[in-house]
Amino acid sequence: MELRKGLEDVAVKETAITYIDGELGRLYYRGYSIFDLAEFSNFEETAYLIWYGKLPNEKELEELRIKLSTNRELPDSIINYIKEVKKDANPMDVLRTAISMLGVEDTDNSDIMEKSIKITSKIPTIISYFYRSRKNLEIIHPDETLSHSENFFYMLNGKKPSEIESKSMDVSLILHMDHEMNASTFACLVVASTLSDIYSSVIAGIAALKGPLHGGANAEALKQFIEIGDKKNVEDYINKRLQSGQRLMGFGHRIYKTYDPRAKIMKEYVKEITKEKGIYNLYEIANAVDEIGIKELGNKGIFPNVDFYSGLMFYSLGFDPDMFPAVFASSRVVGWTAHVVEYLKNNRLIRPKAIYIGEIGRKYLPLEDRQ
Amino acid sequence: MELRKGLEDVAVKETAITYIDGELGRLYYRGYSIFDLAEFSNFEETAYLIWYGKLPNEKELEELRIKLSTNRELPDSIINYIKEVKKDANPMDVLRTAISMLGVEDTDNSDIMEKSIKITSKIPTIISYFYRSRKNLEIIHPDETLSHSENFFYMLNGKKPSEIESKSMDVSLILHMDHEMNASTFACLVVASTLSDIYSSVIAGIAALKGPLHGGANAEALKQFIEIGDKKNVEDYINKRLQSGQRLMGFGHRIYKTYDPRAKIMKEYVKEITKEKGIYNLYEIANAVDEIGIKELGNKGIFPNVDFYSGLMFYSLGFDPDMFPAVFASSRVVGWTAHVVEYLKNNRLIRPKAIYIGEIGRKYLPLEDRQ
Ligand SMILES: CC(C)(COP(=O)(O)OP(=O)(O)OC[C@H]1O[C@@H](n2cnc3c(N)ncnc32)[C@H](O)[C@@H]1OP(=O)(O)O)[C@@H](O)C(=O)NCCC(=O)NCCS
Ligand SMILES: CC(C)(COP(=O)(O)OP(=O)(O)OC[C@H]1O[C@@H](n2cnc3c(N)ncnc32)[C@H](O)[C@@H]1OP(=O)(O)O)[C@@H](O)C(=O)NCCC(=O)NCCS
Repeated sequence: MELRKGLEDVAVKETAITYIDGELGRLYYRGYSIFDLAEFSNFEETAYLIWYGKLPNEKELEELRIKLSTNRELPDSIINYIKEVKKDANPMDVLRTAISMLGVEDTDNSDIMEKSIKITSKIPTIISYFYRSRKNLEIIHPDETLSHSENFFYMLNGKKPSEIESKSMDVSLILHMDHEMNASTFACLVVASTLSDIYSSVIAGIAALKGPLHGGANAEALKQFIEIGDKKNVEDYINKRLQSGQRLMGFGHRIYKTYDPRAKIMKEYVKEITKEKGIYNLYEIANAVDEIGIKELGNKGIFPNVDFYSGLMFYSLGFDPDMFPAVFASSRVVGWTAHVVEYLKNNRLIRPKAIYIGEIGRKYLPLEDRQ
Repeated sequence: MELRKGLEDVAVKETAITYIDGELGRLYYRGYSIFDLAEFSNFEETAYLIWYGKLPNEKELEELRIKLSTNRELPDSIINYIKEVKKDANPMDVLRTAISMLGVEDTDNSDIMEKSIKITSKIPTIISYFYRSRKNLEIIHPDETLSHSENFFYMLNGKKPSEIESKSMDVSLILHMDHEMNASTFACLVVASTLSDIYSSVIAGIAALKGPLHGGANAEALKQFIEIGDKKNVEDYINKRLQSGQRLMGFGHRIYKTYDPRAKIMKEYVKEITKEKGIYNLYEIANAVDEIGIKELGNKGIFPNVDFYSGLMFYSLGFDPDMFPAVFASSRVVGWTAHVVEYLKNNRLIRPKAIYIGEIGRKYLPLEDRQ
């Protein structure tokens, strides 16, 4: 038996959900280019596409819109938990707990897809309630007349988004919605393969996305830009960092060996929104790191990835850096649940092996005879 | 890229924790035979062995005993949650939520091993508090003077265990403590490989163990014995069941092609304890199913597995059938956390792939032009 540590290049399922072309820098959801979806689509429509495999017609889109907008509110017990939890709690821990509580409460017999929609509609509420509670602000209840993205922004910031804020939110969520077999999606599948419930699967996804090697890189990239302080420091900063053997955060990817298409799209919107927010200087720094970084690393196939710009985007939209992984989860949950539904159509328990390298046949000594 | 669905025979790590010999029907923890451990050891000592790789001396055992016995109590907020949660909640959902809440609260800087010990010491408390609350009984706080197994029994049943109850509890927990790369242990590793925290890993393990293909078989086996009702019905029952293409629950195993050593051990203790409990008739039925089942299926390598007798054992010890997976978790948590600690010594992010079988390059049509 061969050791396949990290399962690199081991295929665990067939999928018709997402395709990544790492050489050309292309990403497709259900066969549609991410460039088209970011430009023309929105959260509800892209979620429909990922879940059901086709772009919805007007009636189908309206049905999903209603389900997503009328299921946002949380039970009082969970609102109370979020209000009372300690203010310095990790937002991913709070999200994981709140979803677990929802799983306890949800006893209706609806199918996995219906439950997935309910979970998706509630995650922004959990994040926003915790965001406001820990800042001692009144929580803002969801507004059914707003779209998923607009309502998320509204519950967080207490005002409706501007046009650029609303579009940026939609684009950010679309870009994070799925990415083939990443660690969190795979964690969801391992759980689902035992025929456990969909809440348990999503909780495993959150548990995995919390890890700094997965959901934490965007906050690190943002920290870099703030640390640099001024674009004239960029060249020095990069040289020092690379010469001392440190990595440039937000650069490099296991699959993309060219510019990550999600970073390309995110960059345009970050440019606009940082202007509106009066933090264009951070964009200028990021842009200089982007250009000089590529000069240094591009010939090795190391280019900006989605995290390079998404931290700055989430920050511009009002999120605290420790909340970035939770925002990521609010979108990736669509991919998680779509992959579970796809896997369960032809389920097989995921049960790998280990190679034993220890002793066998040790002799049991009574306690008093041991060293 | 080859599709390895279910990851059957794919090794994801090297391990010095557990070795299964499926041909001879042997199981070793850290090189010690499960027969020796069940006969001579106890929960604390076997947990020490699995975590630290050696049998403890008196001082080491005493240190672990103290840690395990002084960390049993839960914070008030979690006690209140357990008391107020709906009485028909799934015990695994409650356990998952309570551990998630503990993860929110635990901010001390102790290492993964110390946190693992704390989690292990609290799981029986969570299970017992919920067991009693939903029956409208007063919860019973842990007693530090009792061993792990005795205290678990005591918090559940409100009285100290008899000698056979105490030994049966220890043996049952020892037999479930680890089993190489099963689905729940693997779920823990996928989460840990992102460098997420140990609570998140254990929660993923609980999420996976909840599934009927993993932690649910023992309750099914017990249900069979109750359904059969009398040992004279066994032959008929088995014939009907097998002729109609149904499986005998608690028979068969992916790795053992002979009698599961854990079933062999469990059987002896079940025989004794059912006598004490006045349900020896259930043992007699089980024993007849065992013998006749082997006559029918043994030539295909299908023999009783651990779940065949563990359901009847847990039932004899006072647990409700819907709690069996949680009791399983209270022991398997030792294996989960030991595998995480071992994996993180030489971590590699677990990130498999999928094979794309969908279309590419579909054309985005505006909403009003769609069917
Ligand atoms: C994402 C990442 C883990 C992909 O790694 P990978 O494909 O397994 O590649 P490796 O880690 O093996 O690195 C290959 C080489 O590129 C270099 N490299 C990779 N990313 C680099 C970066 N961001 N900055 C500088 N050098 C980098 C490595 O040092 C290594 O060089 P060497 O061969 O001279 O030792 C890696 O690029 C990285 O750590 N990036 C920074 C963190 C980050 O942005 N993560 C977000 C991921 S979405
Ligand atoms: C545990 C289990 C999934 C192992 O499965 P596996 O090694 O993948 O074997 P398969 O499911 O491919 O079965 C192989 C053959 O044995 C038969 N078989 C396996 N377990 C059987 C059982 N418990 N009763 C009757 N027939 C059984 C299958 O029907 C199949 O026969 P076929 O080749 O004529 O179709 C299987 O034995 C089972 O379902 N057992 C019952 C449930 C149970 O006790 N689970 C607890 C597991 S710890």
